Amino acid sequence: MVTAAGAADRALAWNRIGYAVPWSKQLSTLSVPNLPGAAGPVLEFERRILDSIPEIEHWFRLQWQEHTPPFYGSVDLRNAGFKLAPIDTNLFPGGFNNLSEEALPCAVQAGQVAVERACPDARRLLLIPERHTRNVHYLLNVARLVRILSSTGLEVRIGTLAEEITAPASISLPGGQSLRLEPLVRNGRRIGLPDFDPCVILLNNDLSAGIPDILRGLDPTQTLLPPLHAGWAVRRKSTHFACYNEVAESFARLVQVDPWMINPLFARCGEVDFRDTASNDCLVSQVDQLLAAIREKYRTYEIKQKPFVIVKADAGTYGMGIMTVHDAAEVAALNRKQRNKMAIVKEGLQVSEVIIQEGVPSYETVEDGVAEPVVYLIDRYVVGGFYRVHPERGIDENLNAPGMHFVPLPFRCSCNLPELGAAPGSSMLNRFYIYGVIGRLALLAAALELERGDPSATAAAAGSSRTAIAPALAG
Amino acid sequence: MVTAAGAADRALAWNRIGYAVPWSKQLSTLSVPNLPGAAGPVLEFERRILDSIPEIEHWFRLQWQEHTPPFYGSVDLRNAGFKLAPIDTNLFPGGFNNLSEEALPCAVQAGQVAVERACPDARRLLLIPERHTRNVHYLLNVARLVRILSSTGLEVRIGTLAEEITAPASISLPGGQSLRLEPLVRNGRRIGLPDFDPCVILLNNDLSAGIPDILRGLDPTQTLLPPLHAGWAVRRKSTHFACYNEVAESFARLVQVDPWMINPLFARCGEVDFRDTASNDCLVSQVDQLLAAIREKYRTYEIKQKPFVIVKADAGTYGMGIMTVHDAAEVAALNRKQRNKMAIVKEGLQVSEVIIQEGVPSYETVEDGVAEPVVYLIDRYVVGGFYRVHPERGIDENLNAPGMHFVPLPFRCSCNLPELGAAPGSSMLNRFYIYGVIGRLALLAAALELERGDPSATAAAAGSSRTAIAPALAG
Repeated sequence: MVTAAGAADRALAWNRIGYAVPWSKQLSTLSVPNLPGAAGPVLEFERRILDSIPEIEHWFRLQWQEHTPPFYGSVDLRNAGFKLAPIDTNLFPGGFNNLSEEALPCAVQAGQVAVERACPDARRLLLIPERHTRNVHYLLNVARLVRILSSTGLEVRIGTLAEEITAPASISLPGGQSLRLEPLVRNGRRIGLPDFDPCVILLNNDLSAGIPDILRGLDPTQTLLPPLHAGWAVRRKSTHFACYNEVAESFARLVQVDPWMINPLFARCGEVDFRDTASNDCLVSQVDQLLAAIREKYRTYEIKQKPFVIVKADAGTYGMGIMTVHDAAEVAALNRKQRNKMAIVKEGLQVSEVIIQEGVPSYETVEDGVAEPVVYLIDRYVVGGFYRVHPERGIDENLNAPGMHFVPLPFRCSCNLPELGAAPGSSMLNRFYIYGVIGRLALLAAALELERGDPSATAAAAGSSRTAIAPALAG
Repeated sequence: MVTAAGAADRALAWNRIGYAVPWSKQLSTLSVPNLPGAAGPVLEFERRILDSIPEIEHWFRLQWQEHTPPFYGSVDLRNAGFKLAPIDTNLFPGGFNNLSEEALPCAVQAGQVAVERACPDARRLLLIPERHTRNVHYLLNVARLVRILSSTGLEVRIGTLAEEITAPASISLPGGQSLRLEPLVRNGRRIGLPDFDPCVILLNNDLSAGIPDILRGLDPTQTLLPPLHAGWAVRRKSTHFACYNEVAESFARLVQVDPWMINPLFARCGEVDFRDTASNDCLVSQVDQLLAAIREKYRTYEIKQKPFVIVKADAGTYGMGIMTVHDAAEVAALNRKQRNKMAIVKEGLQVSEVIIQEGVPSYETVEDGVAEPVVYLIDRYVVGGFYRVHPERGIDENLNAPGMHFVPLPFRCSCNLPELGAAPGSSMLNRFYIYGVIGRLALLAAALELERGDPSATAAAAGSSRTAIAPALAG
């Protein structure tokens, strides 16, 4: 579990940097997550990105004219030094409360753009959170979202799907805040609250348990964001990363790097039963092939590490059902306990489809814990981020697990202020700018994914020129 | 002159607020500009604004769909307690260097929106600054603008109109920065630098000296922002405030206040010669009538102060040619020195058109100096602000004069984070949110002004329903 007090202390430590030294100096010397791999290829990669900023931002502007960004998202990244890649893109981000206070004004500004895009005429927004009403950390996230959305100038209320909430209920939160949850009601083809008919409904519920009937077949004048097919009832990680392949390909051509430097290889198996050893042939052979492909890449770049893959549910979240595998034999030899752990994810769902993803070791550490950056986006803007830190996990393990804590990026590490002229590897502003770029690439992949998966689109044929990523023009 | 070191020290003092107390608490107790008038009507006004935030933001969203915001702007405000009004709107703002570092990420984000609007295909932007190349404070403003615009992902270079710059010149600035100024060149109908053909040209030169030939008749695929008719060669303050009348009227209806609470009364005289006493009849009679109108308002609201007006050039800037008048007889009795001072403004231009504006006393003080807030906007977003403080001036005097200094709003006083639920008058966040609202009203007036003054518009008939401010609908 997140230790809220610990996280707050750490955030404070980051903020306690004095003001006597120019802040750009401080960043490169104080409290900077350590990245020992910051040499050789990673510096060359950083240089290419920084040299191409006008081309990169121009390319993004054109992409966002063709593809509509999701309302919001968060992207988990892993920085291996030789490789920097997104490993998970969340379209119903929790954890907004882990962003620094200083990130709020930009989040509000981005929220204004997102609201304008979704429904310029909006006055009222209904937020539908996850059902779990007892997780304080999650409720702090909801409170933070309410604050951001209210500050864009909308009247915001919360409609819950939780069955135990049968009447409006106020929940007190640490820090003197409180949240009012009200039971969601349906009236004909519209949803809302008894005295509140919203124009926009924002889901912060990833629909892991399936699409509730109350959300189906809504009046098209009520805008539901993100759309239902963004939920885990429909969405697949493998589809997202297939879209990311295209995005990474085009971007890598633009900045002239090997797409592999920003893209984890992956495969999928559609019919896995972890409780039945016989049904795992697909998994064993895919793991084997993927490890071979990574080994090949490691040879090319003279990387000495031992390759590994991550096996995880193709639909789902919350860091459950995730396993690190260095050898296909490990999959065949899983014991009963391990099998059971893999077989069930959030909301008790059975796992039958899995994605096998190239493992990207994380060489960043914060206070001796292995750390991975998480980037938050609203509309097409990076609005902040934090490090997920797990002191007891290895560089090749999932960090999204009990024992993790969060260290907000200090405000000064904004993701949109590259420090041109700084020596490669010396500037945190540049490192975070690049994290913002990779986060936006993942968001663009999500945009493609939602566009192509839209059941109401008439011409959503995958691969049609209408929906493809525009090729990068020569710099 | 601005005392740069002093301003930096003060900014530091603001930033040095500790982190142990929740920051919203600190704001209401520490370093808060004093506003003794914060009672009675001003609290009622604050309450109305805060109660109407969803209506206000909705109204702005609709306005910005109809009217294109200028690329950037800054608005001088005066808070009299009983009245809060813009007194000057600058469409070529200097002073970006006076914003806090913490305001930068939001400025960059707003800049991205502005660039997208102006020219989504842009890669290169040429900045044309004022001619005066020796004013360090102004050059620091240019450097800050370059930083913001480069961070949006454009290649930015500076083309100067200064005749003494005949070859590229680097100028060193305090803090180790440097600026490269290059002579602007014209090639057919395009302008740029010898090896730099920009898609967007951003003027940071208010064209007080007239429109240079080099800027006339440009290729329409080169976007010049703000347009030439935004410069003082064409623009008139009285036209701006006539547009602001409409904006204030509509907004006041929305929040149900007397428009006078946010709008300074004004009049103009088109043919004044300060050196010829006989030609000042218009001025004397206008001053007299305006003072009478203010007196009437003061009676209605039981305001005990002595009314005054400000007489200033209808075209022009830089705080020159500005005079405080409490009685029309003062105008008739000006001595030769005072006349000469009024007769000439920036770039040696003669003043023949003047605006007579209701004086709004400033009851805010920072460290015992009379202070007025200045709000900065890029596209339709408030991106920061500062207090202009003048320790030697009275509450009824122009503060934009030698001896002033600048105190940046601390980052925490972002203008887009109203603190709902705070008691009226107790929250700096709320005071700055309201300043942001008034700043945006002035920006909207500028949008109307530029739209109607556009010489290339075919249907720019003033007052047509196309260009009018949409009426506020009932809450």
